[in-house]
Amino acid sequence: MSASAATVMERDTLLSQQDGAPVEIINPYGDSKIVLVCEHASNLVPLHLSNLGLTPDQLNSHIGWDLGARDLAVRLSKALNAPLVAARFSRLVYDCNRPPEALSAMPHETEVCLVPGNEGISNEERLARAEEIYVPFHRAVSDVLRHKRRAGIDPIVVTIHSYTPVFKGEKRDVEIGYLHADDDRLSKALEYFSTYGTSYNIRLNEPYAPVDGVLHSIEKHLEDGSFDYVMIEVRNDLLQDEDKHSAIFSLLSKCIPEAVSSLDDQLS
Amino acid sequence: MSASAATVMERDTLLSQQDGAPVEIINPYGDSKIVLVCEHASNLVPLHLSNLGLTPDQLNSHIGWDLGARDLAVRLSKALNAPLVAARFSRLVYDCNRPPEALSAMPHETEVCLVPGNEGISNEERLARAEEIYVPFHRAVSDVLRHKRRAGIDPIVVTIHSYTPVFKGEKRDVEIGYLHADDDRLSKALEYFSTYGTSYNIRLNEPYAPVDGVLHSIEKHLEDGSFDYVMIEVRNDLLQDEDKHSAIFSLLSKCIPEAVSSLDDQLS
Repeated sequence: MSASAATVMERDTLLSQQDGAPVEIINPYGDSKIVLVCEHASNLVPLHLSNLGLTPDQLNSHIGWDLGARDLAVRLSKALNAPLVAARFSRLVYDCNRPPEALSAMPHETEVCLVPGNEGISNEERLARAEEIYVPFHRAVSDVLRHKRRAGIDPIVVTIHSYTPVFKGEKRDVEIGYLHADDDRLSKALEYFSTYGTSYNIRLNEPYAPVDGVLHSIEKHLEDGSFDYVMIEVRNDLLQDEDKHSAIFSLLSKCIPEAVSSLDDQLS
Repeated sequence: MSASAATVMERDTLLSQQDGAPVEIINPYGDSKIVLVCEHASNLVPLHLSNLGLTPDQLNSHIGWDLGARDLAVRLSKALNAPLVAARFSRLVYDCNRPPEALSAMPHETEVCLVPGNEGISNEERLARAEEIYVPFHRAVSDVLRHKRRAGIDPIVVTIHSYTPVFKGEKRDVEIGYLHADDDRLSKALEYFSTYGTSYNIRLNEPYAPVDGVLHSIEKHLEDGSFDYVMIEVRNDLLQDEDKHSAIFSLLSKCIPEAVSSLDDQLS
């Protein structure tokens, strides 16, 4: 490590100074027991990867990130006073919700196009992306969970995602999905509180389910200690219009605390 | 706020998504009472400001940032388990150790050259830089201090800076400076512990002093509650060689805790 090694021009790692950190912790001192996680928050590509050979329109579509997810997560972080761990680079650079050994962690194709910058990448490049993006992302999640536990708080993990209304030509009717593995308590509580008085099409384990590998982040951190959790999926057409976005935000900012409280009641 | 407003091409604020956040909190849950601050940690310029019309060599010199300061601060953050608040953009874009009304917050000239991107900037641009860089930087410092106090800890603020060995043609003999305003307790304790057994030329309130306006960050946060503090200035030739950098790091990582402990002893 030499101070003079960091310049505006040099690069000897994947991420340059201009790129900045791979992960941000928003509201790190928020005192809620809820910890928000947003793995697909950004469509940013590190400068030297030249947008992975994709066009801005491609990167700005759902293949590059979960449209609207970061905005929703940031609003929830503020409303619930909950820490939020958000990735700063596109899922196509490294999908933080996938383990390094998964091909989908750095996919060379999506359902709509190839990803030129991911075709035939070397093991060295794969390792660099994992070490510089995936590892620090999950270290940040671990840090937040450890901080909660040290404060005597049992954390609850809520991950925020969005999905495309049409996937491989098929229209999806489900509007909000609560995803869970074996422990369905928080998902069912959320389903209960959020269906009351609303007309959203809400389902459990749709449009994805654990078998799709989408609970990686949650399962990874469950290895270090149990916690209640839910993965929230919102159909992205409901997050791309200010009024619709606000309606989803209002629903979730009300129902998440209600569902969490109901778990506490079950315990006592 | 619309989710679709954030694209890889658009920009309606100073900082784009590519630029990332203006401030980073490193080790936010570090349990030390020490809070490290590094206002001149970066020589980065937001993309749309086109390097302020400066060359990479100019930006990489001491006019762009405090050479070696971030590396030193990050090492201290780890060694002391102390949170570190570090700016992510060059002091020439906005000097977070200066109030918005100071011309030196966005200087149109340095002692060695003009800064084209800062000449004749509009009030609107000055306000945008203050709001998007200075305000969040100091909000982050406030957040860390509040977090410490809520945990029942009286924080101690240590800011990390470096300076050029030759300034306006004059060679500077001082190698380490401890800067203070009225409250000189921590500076004097550090002077005491760090001069013992070392041959560094160490001085109080050199090469800068409060009259130069360099204690802005500290004085700003003292308005919200008292704390012990010191501004540490290291001559940057001692931070640009790995061995010299390590020697300074070893000295400070040993002496800062000693000096802090001695203040506790005085109190008890």
